[in-house]
Amino acid sequence: MFDLENLCISSAKASQTLLTLTKDKINDALKAVADAVLQNKSKIIKANAIDVDNAKQKGLSDGFIDRLTLSETVIESIALGIKQVAELDSPVDKVVYSYYDDDQKITVEKINVPFGVVGMIFESRPNVTADAFALCFKTANAVILKGGSDALNSNKALVDVIKEALTSQGIDPNAINLIEDADRETTSKFMKMDKYVDLLIPRGGASLIRSAIENSTIPIIETGTGNCHIYVDQTADVDRCASVIYNAKTQRYSVCNACESLVIHSKILDKVLPAVANALKQKQVEIRCDEQAYRVIKDYPYLAKATEEDFYTEYGGPIISVKTVDSIEQAIAHINEHSTGHSEAIMTENEQNAQLFAKTIDSSCVYHNASTRFSDGFQFGLGAEIGISTQKMHARGPMGLNALVTTKYVVKGEYSTRK
Amino acid sequence: MFDLENLCISSAKASQTLLTLTKDKINDALKAVADAVLQNKSKIIKANAIDVDNAKQKGLSDGFIDRLTLSETVIESIALGIKQVAELDSPVDKVVYSYYDDDQKITVEKINVPFGVVGMIFESRPNVTADAFALCFKTANAVILKGGSDALNSNKALVDVIKEALTSQGIDPNAINLIEDADRETTSKFMKMDKYVDLLIPRGGASLIRSAIENSTIPIIETGTGNCHIYVDQTADVDRCASVIYNAKTQRYSVCNACESLVIHSKILDKVLPAVANALKQKQVEIRCDEQAYRVIKDYPYLAKATEEDFYTEYGGPIISVKTVDSIEQAIAHINEHSTGHSEAIMTENEQNAQLFAKTIDSSCVYHNASTRFSDGFQFGLGAEIGISTQKMHARGPMGLNALVTTKYVVKGEYSTRK
Repeated sequence: MFDLENLCISSAKASQTLLTLTKDKINDALKAVADAVLQNKSKIIKANAIDVDNAKQKGLSDGFIDRLTLSETVIESIALGIKQVAELDSPVDKVVYSYYDDDQKITVEKINVPFGVVGMIFESRPNVTADAFALCFKTANAVILKGGSDALNSNKALVDVIKEALTSQGIDPNAINLIEDADRETTSKFMKMDKYVDLLIPRGGASLIRSAIENSTIPIIETGTGNCHIYVDQTADVDRCASVIYNAKTQRYSVCNACESLVIHSKILDKVLPAVANALKQKQVEIRCDEQAYRVIKDYPYLAKATEEDFYTEYGGPIISVKTVDSIEQAIAHINEHSTGHSEAIMTENEQNAQLFAKTIDSSCVYHNASTRFSDGFQFGLGAEIGISTQKMHARGPMGLNALVTTKYVVKGEYSTRK
Repeated sequence: MFDLENLCISSAKASQTLLTLTKDKINDALKAVADAVLQNKSKIIKANAIDVDNAKQKGLSDGFIDRLTLSETVIESIALGIKQVAELDSPVDKVVYSYYDDDQKITVEKINVPFGVVGMIFESRPNVTADAFALCFKTANAVILKGGSDALNSNKALVDVIKEALTSQGIDPNAINLIEDADRETTSKFMKMDKYVDLLIPRGGASLIRSAIENSTIPIIETGTGNCHIYVDQTADVDRCASVIYNAKTQRYSVCNACESLVIHSKILDKVLPAVANALKQKQVEIRCDEQAYRVIKDYPYLAKATEEDFYTEYGGPIISVKTVDSIEQAIAHINEHSTGHSEAIMTENEQNAQLFAKTIDSSCVYHNASTRFSDGFQFGLGAEIGISTQKMHARGPMGLNALVTTKYVVKGEYSTRK
């Protein structure tokens, strides 16, 4: 029978052994894992084919199957991604604060250290398995993965390959562990393993995130839900702002940093909304408007009336809502009420309004005259991304390697006593 | 009837108004609050006298009553403390990361920003009320306080004085709110107010902390439980290490950074334990030993045998446990199993062992040849302390003003779109 606690204990033990590995050793092991992934391409594809077949029989969507499928190209990019992580600077061991008390003879250093064991619960996207391992291992953390059950065969194959490569490098293979039990009960139990797991990152829909908030006794980082807004202020450049909105809405629909809602100042509504509609028409985007906005583009072919519920909705598809406001203060209040705290933008030529927006919008990323689509670890120069945090504690916004370390005060004395 | 949700909403609204205050305005208001505390000394002492009388009638301990009592001197030190916080540098608005993408025309800055609303649940120590307010307000956070019910009259008087001073400065008095309802049910409900409260800091005994871990839907920072160890390695300087142990155990018993347990290498046990016992005898400290240690100091007047439970116990009084080990690895394993992750020390002349200890001990503060009593924001040069975190997320160890800010990515573009 599957023993979750035992698995967590073996991960905790492995995490202790990772603490004394040198950075070179870690990077060498990452490269060995990348090579092993390439060498075992056909084995991984074979396992993945079982998952893809099952998903097709279940009638799952094309988008779902697309994210599930591991082609040769996808596997090559997975291996390349692991090698790139090996090339990044590690935040581990960096001194982030120091203090010397001459009188009492102590030297205080605050140093970046691994968390220990990181848990991840995620959707049926097997590439995340390799990504999460690479980022956690780079920062000397052990990782426990609970992937979507539709990707189980793929994840098993990938994790086996990684474990073998670690073993061949003389590293405890429990540095990565996979929870193979698809039972929901197991997920709930996993969220209570705070004795062994130091950090839990749930990735997925709003219901998974809410379940983790309510049930997890492990500290969590909320990620991924994005009801992102663009506010068009009175002084925005109409044409340029329409192109930003087009980019933010239509470049990719399913991503969390896509724009889901426009908030438009009434003084510019007549000019900007037709320009936006004209752009969005090319992609047949449905526009759900409040009364005032509805009247402005009443001949738009994909027009609907917005309900209050629309303003809370992350569509993840070719739909956008429009709310009209009479001031920037109204816009800010509307956005802070309806957003998920992910990414919001203001389009304006008024610097003071841009500053007010940046100060008072309660979201992880705030934009002035730029598309919300930039919210991404790579776009922000982090070199990697483990997710996008929509909470305020520990990490907020796109998370790179820094989000995977905590700190420790290391104090040296001369048999020093406190006065 | 007391409406908790309404109180939280008013705090959330106040937190929005704090975002646009200048640092000068905040510091001026802190000074005005300090002055108001001094001016209302007699009013505060009068309210405190009711709490102290009630506590005496309840037969609460001298230590408890000591921490509860607000003398003129204590109130003066409270006011001084608030003025000192005004003098500190604020971490708010500091740019902690920046990135420029020349090609896509975006400037990314990661900036320290307030959390919003901070909740604190704490014991019957009214000085914490003023402390917590000063540190939260300094970082432009609103604070909601739930103090121990035995200090209710004192807290009400203090919060009234602070609210009046804020109002006189033109600042929303809901920047500080006190939950006056002593019902435990209310505390549980408070822990679920994640819609309005951004961060919860429970301070107090292990059962309060565990309840917050299990019930809170607000992200929490665990604080304060300290089962701290000192490990005496084979090469320690016997006399100097005895003086460190004496300091760490006896300087103050009730504090979380006091040493509760000794772990001693068997090769040095015969030398070091008698020296330690000799020092601790002056304060009549009970020593609870494992078999091997017991035999070494069998004539010690306050000697007992340690049970496994002892090694998990934070005594908070004149008792210490002793565990004998045959290697540093055994010592590390013992400590990681029994500690609360607060502060642990190694006494050694062996630099390699000191490094191994620092690397693999899973605690917020790790000491080499120094007393665990140094774990304190002021001792570490932070200029302030809101508590000592024993968790790894967001903040770890003594927490200063930095622990009370989160970050926000502020991105400026030129109507930039993602490629």
